Amino acid sequence: MDKIVSDRKIDEYYMRRALSLACRGTGKTSPNPMVGCVLVRDDRVIGEGYHARCGADHAEVAALEDLARRGETARGATAYVNLEPCCHVGRTPPCAPRLVEEGVARVVAGMTDPNPRVDRKGLEVLRTGGVEVAGPCLEPECRWLNRGFVRVQTLGRPWVTLKAAAGLDGRIALTNGESRWITGPEARQWAHRMRASHDAVLVGVGTVLRDDPELTVRHTEGRHPLRVVLDSRLSTPIGAKVVSGGCLILTCCSDTAKAEALAEAGARIRRIPESRGLVDLGAALSCLVEEGVLSLMVEGGARVLTSFMALGLADELALFSSHRIMGEGPGLGTGLRLEAVSDSVLLKDARARRVGKDFLLEARFSCSPDL
Amino acid sequence: MDKIVSDRKIDEYYMRRALSLACRGTGKTSPNPMVGCVLVRDDRVIGEGYHARCGADHAEVAALEDLARRGETARGATAYVNLEPCCHVGRTPPCAPRLVEEGVARVVAGMTDPNPRVDRKGLEVLRTGGVEVAGPCLEPECRWLNRGFVRVQTLGRPWVTLKAAAGLDGRIALTNGESRWITGPEARQWAHRMRASHDAVLVGVGTVLRDDPELTVRHTEGRHPLRVVLDSRLSTPIGAKVVSGGCLILTCCSDTAKAEALAEAGARIRRIPESRGLVDLGAALSCLVEEGVLSLMVEGGARVLTSFMALGLADELALFSSHRIMGEGPGLGTGLRLEAVSDSVLLKDARARRVGKDFLLEARFSCSPDL
Repeated sequence: MDKIVSDRKIDEYYMRRALSLACRGTGKTSPNPMVGCVLVRDDRVIGEGYHARCGADHAEVAALEDLARRGETARGATAYVNLEPCCHVGRTPPCAPRLVEEGVARVVAGMTDPNPRVDRKGLEVLRTGGVEVAGPCLEPECRWLNRGFVRVQTLGRPWVTLKAAAGLDGRIALTNGESRWITGPEARQWAHRMRASHDAVLVGVGTVLRDDPELTVRHTEGRHPLRVVLDSRLSTPIGAKVVSGGCLILTCCSDTAKAEALAEAGARIRRIPESRGLVDLGAALSCLVEEGVLSLMVEGGARVLTSFMALGLADELALFSSHRIMGEGPGLGTGLRLEAVSDSVLLKDARARRVGKDFLLEARFSCSPDL
Repeated sequence: MDKIVSDRKIDEYYMRRALSLACRGTGKTSPNPMVGCVLVRDDRVIGEGYHARCGADHAEVAALEDLARRGETARGATAYVNLEPCCHVGRTPPCAPRLVEEGVARVVAGMTDPNPRVDRKGLEVLRTGGVEVAGPCLEPECRWLNRGFVRVQTLGRPWVTLKAAAGLDGRIALTNGESRWITGPEARQWAHRMRASHDAVLVGVGTVLRDDPELTVRHTEGRHPLRVVLDSRLSTPIGAKVVSGGCLILTCCSDTAKAEALAEAGARIRRIPESRGLVDLGAALSCLVEEGVLSLMVEGGARVLTSFMALGLADELALFSSHRIMGEGPGLGTGLRLEAVSDSVLLKDARARRVGKDFLLEARFSCSPDL
């Protein structure tokens, strides 16, 4: 019994290392998942690596190269990898046969690959090749890390996080549209870190017209996400900062003159089917998957946030709550008309923390399927 | 230096005991403050007592009686009392001269009495009588315990706590008025404990018409607070539960027929000056002071909560926040129309905690003066 517990703990120890390596690819691997790999023999790490960016080596290959640099061989080693090794040829050769070839004795996989082209076939290749296969190991952590990848593979849409800065009364702006600055500098910095870790950020055209946001990462280090504007009627001004920044405009408007002018100013335009005169959100999310987006952060305004909630297309809420009552004005839930309290948009797994003088409430939407 | 720190720590130790005794009077002493007294000689408690209810012995007298029962005398003892001993004749004889008489050597007072009839005069009586006077000791804790008494003595109004149960979007009801049950049973029990610790609870007549609440303490032990209804036009139904429960209706309506019918059904009616056709809130609070109310819990609805905030008459917010987005409907801050985010009703000293599945956010209103 002691031995079994102990072996599991050892596996979890190295899997955490693999997860930690995988995290280094945050914001750079999409549409690929984040993967780390640790090669261990006789309780010693003999090689490790991670998938650094889309197009670069897979984690297993990076670890094998590290191993070679160290003058080691993989014979008899255990490979810890947070995602099932692949068996299909993508931009790089498949990893499962490579691990067999190199003589790896055991593979501990954090989770199976939800990609239907892999889904346990990678493990099968390993088993057939005489490799002992173990796992899942720390599966909830592994699935959480690659929640965007899981959503795309299983639901065909990105992981969607709604982000809002509101007063304690849930208001995100005044009736005159004023919304700066509801929260303090620490919350704004946190929100920029969130931008850097998402593949795309999205706002409605109303927010562009009112606030002219840049949607870039400024108050922290990190890569700018793809900037997306939902703009049914192509009312985005040519001079908007997001346009010159090279945003993607999702529209159901067929006015080619407007589209050409915006394209000339720097925006990319994609036509999306309409639903009740507005961009169909489900179709918009499919389009973003085509753009390689695994994780989307929706920044507002109120109607856009509510639309995602009302359609059950939101996974996570990040609500920065400031110590103020703002009174009348658009808020979280504006536009949502319910007949019973029991019909509320419900949240689960909520955690609250301080961020500067503000609170950050993080929760999952109940409609968000289990990972 | 060590000696000084050590003496202060000893004083604080016994003062905490006095505070803890004082707390036993919670909800029973108004309009008197909560006071506890500990008599100590040679590092040994020789007597202790507290003000159990309005009309009963003051804490000092209760402690001296406890001392007598133990066969001790107060000669040479130190008396720890969280509020300056009184020097005026109320329902009971003054305590400061009594402590002198009994030969107490030293009095440590937590805070001076903000009652202008006492305010340091009690300490002066002690000093003149040859008693060493020390303090304030744990003053913030002492003032917080008797915050209602401090408000009444200094501002002529009770301590006002706004209590609301809302969704994460700050909505306290749906557009159809439905508001049960937004929060879970633990939050409701907590709210009933809050009722038991306040002298009075107040709702607007709209809440009476819509919810017909009892406003009693049911989900926990404790005394029912005074139930108050703000009802400008005397629209409270004769059959409302609060009426038969013996509520106090504050109105600016002069319809004597309505008033008599309500009085016959069990309510007490008090006429309050009007302000823009509604009961003047400042005058309503003065009236409650006359009723012996030190602490008031305002339970809604939205307009009543907003009125207290807008007039700067609120000290504390207790916001039970449920994991749901409720959408359109009255909320915290409904009816408050601001021109700039910087004009928001601001809060300070906010703390969040879990209560069952809900969050309880407790904060002070910035407009609430320091204690």
